[in-house]
Amino acid sequence: MGTLKIDPEFELDSQLSSNTSHLLDPEEFRKQGHMMVDFLADYFHNIKTYPVHSLVEPGYLKKLLPDSAPNQPEPIEKILQDVQRDIFPGLTHWQSPNFFAYFPCISSTAGILGEMLTAGLNVVGFSWIASPAATELESIVMDWLGKLINLPKTYLFSGGGGGVIQGTTCEAMLCTIVAARDQMSDKVGRENMDKLVVYASDQTHFSFQKAVKISGIKPENFRAIPTTKATEFALCPESLSATIQEDIKVGLIPLFLCVTIGTTSTTVVDPLKPLCEIAKEYGIWVHVDAAYAGSACICPEFQHYLDGVENANSLSLNAHKWLFSTLDCCCLWVKDPSSLTKALSTTPECLRNKVTDSKQAIDYKDWQIALSRRFRSLKLWLVLRSYGVANLRNFIRSHIKMAKHFEGLVTMDERFEIVAPRKFSMVCFRFSPLALEKKDKFVDQDQVNKFNAKLLESINLSGNIHMTHALVGGVYMIRFAIGSPMTDYQNIDMAWEVIRNHANAMLDVKSTKMVQ
Amino acid sequence: MGTLKIDPEFELDSQLSSNTSHLLDPEEFRKQGHMMVDFLADYFHNIKTYPVHSLVEPGYLKKLLPDSAPNQPEPIEKILQDVQRDIFPGLTHWQSPNFFAYFPCISSTAGILGEMLTAGLNVVGFSWIASPAATELESIVMDWLGKLINLPKTYLFSGGGGGVIQGTTCEAMLCTIVAARDQMSDKVGRENMDKLVVYASDQTHFSFQKAVKISGIKPENFRAIPTTKATEFALCPESLSATIQEDIKVGLIPLFLCVTIGTTSTTVVDPLKPLCEIAKEYGIWVHVDAAYAGSACICPEFQHYLDGVENANSLSLNAHKWLFSTLDCCCLWVKDPSSLTKALSTTPECLRNKVTDSKQAIDYKDWQIALSRRFRSLKLWLVLRSYGVANLRNFIRSHIKMAKHFEGLVTMDERFEIVAPRKFSMVCFRFSPLALEKKDKFVDQDQVNKFNAKLLESINLSGNIHMTHALVGGVYMIRFAIGSPMTDYQNIDMAWEVIRNHANAMLDVKSTKMVQ
Repeated sequence: MGTLKIDPEFELDSQLSSNTSHLLDPEEFRKQGHMMVDFLADYFHNIKTYPVHSLVEPGYLKKLLPDSAPNQPEPIEKILQDVQRDIFPGLTHWQSPNFFAYFPCISSTAGILGEMLTAGLNVVGFSWIASPAATELESIVMDWLGKLINLPKTYLFSGGGGGVIQGTTCEAMLCTIVAARDQMSDKVGRENMDKLVVYASDQTHFSFQKAVKISGIKPENFRAIPTTKATEFALCPESLSATIQEDIKVGLIPLFLCVTIGTTSTTVVDPLKPLCEIAKEYGIWVHVDAAYAGSACICPEFQHYLDGVENANSLSLNAHKWLFSTLDCCCLWVKDPSSLTKALSTTPECLRNKVTDSKQAIDYKDWQIALSRRFRSLKLWLVLRSYGVANLRNFIRSHIKMAKHFEGLVTMDERFEIVAPRKFSMVCFRFSPLALEKKDKFVDQDQVNKFNAKLLESINLSGNIHMTHALVGGVYMIRFAIGSPMTDYQNIDMAWEVIRNHANAMLDVKSTKMVQ
Repeated sequence: MGTLKIDPEFELDSQLSSNTSHLLDPEEFRKQGHMMVDFLADYFHNIKTYPVHSLVEPGYLKKLLPDSAPNQPEPIEKILQDVQRDIFPGLTHWQSPNFFAYFPCISSTAGILGEMLTAGLNVVGFSWIASPAATELESIVMDWLGKLINLPKTYLFSGGGGGVIQGTTCEAMLCTIVAARDQMSDKVGRENMDKLVVYASDQTHFSFQKAVKISGIKPENFRAIPTTKATEFALCPESLSATIQEDIKVGLIPLFLCVTIGTTSTTVVDPLKPLCEIAKEYGIWVHVDAAYAGSACICPEFQHYLDGVENANSLSLNAHKWLFSTLDCCCLWVKDPSSLTKALSTTPECLRNKVTDSKQAIDYKDWQIALSRRFRSLKLWLVLRSYGVANLRNFIRSHIKMAKHFEGLVTMDERFEIVAPRKFSMVCFRFSPLALEKKDKFVDQDQVNKFNAKLLESINLSGNIHMTHALVGGVYMIRFAIGSPMTDYQNIDMAWEVIRNHANAMLDVKSTKMVQ
């Protein structure tokens, strides 16, 4: 790369013939690969010294980089210096031990090694024949993981179902919606497509509505059923039932329900069992979105959240969120693979082969949107084997224990309050209205929300820790999501210190202002 | 990982608190990372010793691996041994210098290093704020590459358009179809959705039809316009025009046209300029699928194939195919980003932030199907900088020169024939009917096809080289696609030797049989 000595003007000369072999010269790769490993190891050492939340302004990088690609090669040493100098300040460091924002997207040594292996082999496993191990390992590992979260046998290849690794939940949702749509369309006729109705709660991840929109379902037929504090913002079976009945009354056709195990805002768990029973009654496809919390179900004590899944049709979880598998790794299981492949399969002449024709093997291109696909199962296989199930459970439990610890800290300070029940490793809290009232007699919800929004902004701007927010039932809350691969109790304690300090500073300013 | 000593029964004990930090211990990562680099470097050294095309039977891996994930951790050394012993035999080696199948999916040192960096940083750049550098580098690099292939300024951010890196072409197609669909739906009303018609040629990649199907466009309204040998199987503007007029006559609404620059079967280039002019007349969205051949347009001598693109709406190319960027890296440019974001944007409360609200920056989640996205631009940046534009052009030209060399070899042997004009680095050939007739008076097309199919099967089963086939205009042809990062003239010469030997063997068997 940096050491290539090729005259740029030297075009189509016979001496060029061997140059392409430089693209993947084993010894050049070895040299540069080792440099990159050291670069990353050093990054992990230093990660906590960077502001967690990037503080750059929009457009910062354009001012630093040239307008066009260089004509001449540049050495990897220089490029890595530029990564450090130009890219790092623009990063919000998701693997920092002080990152508590969004949901975690957890990397690990095994996950990164898996990505390295995937990139190095760089095979394209769209059909079995294109690189058989890619398909076979994926189906084996998906059965392994399905068993670990105690999915009924009907979701496993060994029981007539099966699993596939996609990029993200939205893709998994889109594929299952299209499968359900086409199945129903066969039954009721294409001309009734605009009568199909899709159900979710108002807490369902917005990716679902996006997937529904992409699939061409009539936007007006998307029902985001309101939830309330009474059910802790879980989807209420009676509300679902009533909504379905209203739709049927006006001649619409119930198609699809998305049930969430661990919502994004507050990790609410919808009651899967009664919801599935209702759905079954009306022949509705149920997809279980367990993007974040599904991974916790490798621990037996959380598996009860999946009770009733035997009556659902599909389930997805993001192993890149809480199963240490590095972005991206969305695991989707379906009970009836033929519904998926019927909607998504295409076998043009150029991809025909004996194995496909004889239906002896899976062609994963028919289980997803895209044709090409990376060999993602390698990293999941490496994660499961490198850590072992016992350790993986420990990791999950350890995160949950840290969340309990943080919950305790919040609870002990009477000025703060927990605003949603903690189920997993995320705590939703806020500076309480009562504490604000002590300083200022008249505070309404809006003022409390504004105070908490300012508190969060002030904390994030410090760069010490990073959190994000949610707004549920009119309440603005700060989300503290634990999961970075390097987070420990000292980070939790430090985070709490930061939060309190910023609150104190704000209150001081406020009281000063009031005195004025 | 392998060295972790955690008692599996030791659950939720206080001593567990620090265990999660093992997930990404910098020194453990360094040690294992170096092992993986050496493992891959050795693989690249030995790659040509493996059968290119895997010879395993369906289900081979299930017999080798356990039924469930291990409870205890396993050392990386053992896992890598298993990769070598159990996975390698099931791989078709896409980076082998003797791989000439499908289209190339070319890796490179820079591409793999980019993937390592992406996996190591593991940031999720769905919105600008989530990790600003991820968004900014992508938009800069997409402008760099857009300029390199000489896209009109209207496709660049600097000219009001813009680019995004998606996973695959099918995703890019789906996003643009949905953008066009929603734009048209606003104009003609949702109730007319079933009147929307989509156009392509019968040589268009099947991913397009799949994307159309997923988007909910009425399947009967997909027009795969027949092509003929007269236009070398390129889409004929007159045929397009006639098809559109017929549709309009019966009250349908033309929506979308996919034009291909380098078809999968034979690398045909559709005449972009006249096709765009027709489309413009009817207000049809034109997407240019340059998945394979688009990369060649970094060389000025191929840019004329994109003449007329100023009248198209979007263009995509797979940098993981022929721009050395490792799977996956599909570059999509659009002239009107707002049409894309209008169809795909969603900003729920939990992702709201000042930068998004003020529209100061791009949120790439609104340019694609999924929310989460990998930091893919790093590898494209590394590839462009590590090799430099001059070398990248040389690599492309070198592949084309090798293809010309192979074409020459085929042409010199009168028993073989070239069956489609070679435009880039792929040669379509077959054992010729005339040569077969010498041995057997009566050969029809079907017999010639069968002979060539058998020839290909025999070659692939040898494991020496790997090619795939196409069937165009009734003619079965063998595709010889050059692009592996280690392929050199000696591999081409050897491949030709293998092909001739297998043909000779088949002819010998055949003549023996005839004598009998």
